[in-house]
Amino acid sequence: MIVTDRAEELRDLLDKARGEAKRVGLHPTMGALHGGHRANIRKMAAECDVAAVSIFVNPLQFGPGEDFDAYPRPLDDDLAQAEEAGADLVLAPGPQFAGHPLISVRVTQLADVLEGAARPGHFDGVATIVTKLFAIAGPCFAYFAEKDYQQLVIVRRLVSDLCLPVVVVTCPTVREPDGLALSSRNAYLSPGERHAAPVLYWSLLAGKRVIEEQKATDGDAVRAAMVSVAGREPLFQLDYADVIDPSTLAGVTTVLGEVRLVIAGRIGRTRLLDNVAANAEEG
Amino acid sequence: MIVTDRAEELRDLLDKARGEAKRVGLHPTMGALHGGHRANIRKMAAECDVAAVSIFVNPLQFGPGEDFDAYPRPLDDDLAQAEEAGADLVLAPGPQFAGHPLISVRVTQLADVLEGAARPGHFDGVATIVTKLFAIAGPCFAYFAEKDYQQLVIVRRLVSDLCLPVVVVTCPTVREPDGLALSSRNAYLSPGERHAAPVLYWSLLAGKRVIEEQKATDGDAVRAAMVSVAGREPLFQLDYADVIDPSTLAGVTTVLGEVRLVIAGRIGRTRLLDNVAANAEEG
Repeated sequence: MIVTDRAEELRDLLDKARGEAKRVGLHPTMGALHGGHRANIRKMAAECDVAAVSIFVNPLQFGPGEDFDAYPRPLDDDLAQAEEAGADLVLAPGPQFAGHPLISVRVTQLADVLEGAARPGHFDGVATIVTKLFAIAGPCFAYFAEKDYQQLVIVRRLVSDLCLPVVVVTCPTVREPDGLALSSRNAYLSPGERHAAPVLYWSLLAGKRVIEEQKATDGDAVRAAMVSVAGREPLFQLDYADVIDPSTLAGVTTVLGEVRLVIAGRIGRTRLLDNVAANAEEG
Repeated sequence: MIVTDRAEELRDLLDKARGEAKRVGLHPTMGALHGGHRANIRKMAAECDVAAVSIFVNPLQFGPGEDFDAYPRPLDDDLAQAEEAGADLVLAPGPQFAGHPLISVRVTQLADVLEGAARPGHFDGVATIVTKLFAIAGPCFAYFAEKDYQQLVIVRRLVSDLCLPVVVVTCPTVREPDGLALSSRNAYLSPGERHAAPVLYWSLLAGKRVIEEQKATDGDAVRAAMVSVAGREPLFQLDYADVIDPSTLAGVTTVLGEVRLVIAGRIGRTRLLDNVAANAEEG
């Protein structure tokens, strides 16, 4: 596995690989890798000839008072995990990689809801760094986690709106046996908080049951079921629980066809989020 | 010469050319080609193996009340000129090429001055379409006119801030014998207005003389000389005449080293702009 902190070196190596007709994969991460990342990298390594991982805690996507400084940066462990999962190349640039862009990428509507509503500028920062990584990596298959659903939808739209030569591949959410979605921020949880954390998934499953088993079509009935389950866990402070259109991210009034159930909130000082798909019978 | 209205076809043809180790050039235009464009295309054809031209009147860079509808679109004549100048490929997409992007490129400081001050959103629209064209064309040498100096500086910064795999090549301004810079908008001028139009260039030369011959270092003295010459032409309504830093576009107080002289204004209903470099002796 080649490790570099120079974007130009990654570009040159991937250009060379493409010149040899190799299929290039890229998995952008903020490090603090866990089993979810390892599953994503294994999938990428199986599907691509060259599996590249970027590790960069992107300051542009953290707001004032967020956990940029505290965000874990266990680089040696990250590299060991990336290699074990089958990465061929890792780009791990220093903080100056973000630069001080005068020209950047702006996300409108899609960034005004859900995570974006509470984190102004967050998705502009994500989209700017992702565009830059794509420009450096060149044509590629880019692996993004379904777990960060709004980010996934925004990256898909970024690629489509700017005609970027990238195929976005969705990496399914990996869960602990009790249903908690793997996340770098789970490491912040105390044992008691960790015990409470599966509440997000239970709430999602409650909403999914209301749609798929009880055949409810009223969006608010689905939300009520999710909020009710979320409210049973005293350590969980709900930010939102919603049933949304899977592409526009807008809340749905009447559930028809495929929708997305999303939830986010805090346990102690740790913000967690999760989502699942649900399918209502058409017509 | 191959002509297509499909971005995907351009992408495929240029991918193929790069696969054959050919050097790809791209000259983005809004059509209404003239001798300036022909000179740019000839330069590109001489320096590259494949010379591609895009012709697209970009709605994203026109504001309300601007001349988007009236902007000339003489496609047959444009294609004849492009071919005569040595273009190998022309992309001329329909108006839907702009799309309705939810995610776009935003230009800060550099867009707040000069042309951008009077045209809010103009350079966001330019940067968004240019990013999209670069994404479609792939790694290339991109030819931009020095005549649109602020645009040139912004495109250079775009490439640098987003690490786009593009080399920006400057195409020197082409002038009529009387000094008027070639521009698609010159076609709007009546004979009397056309007679007055070289005033922009005379004003620039006056500023340049003050710097290079009179060795003035006071920015305001340079501006005064430019404004004085501009004021002698009654048909010319000056918007701005300035001496600026060639990279930051900020007005300079003390002229040192290389600076840029810029001027813009209206003759009748036609907005014209021009610029030249000037070099003060260092220290």
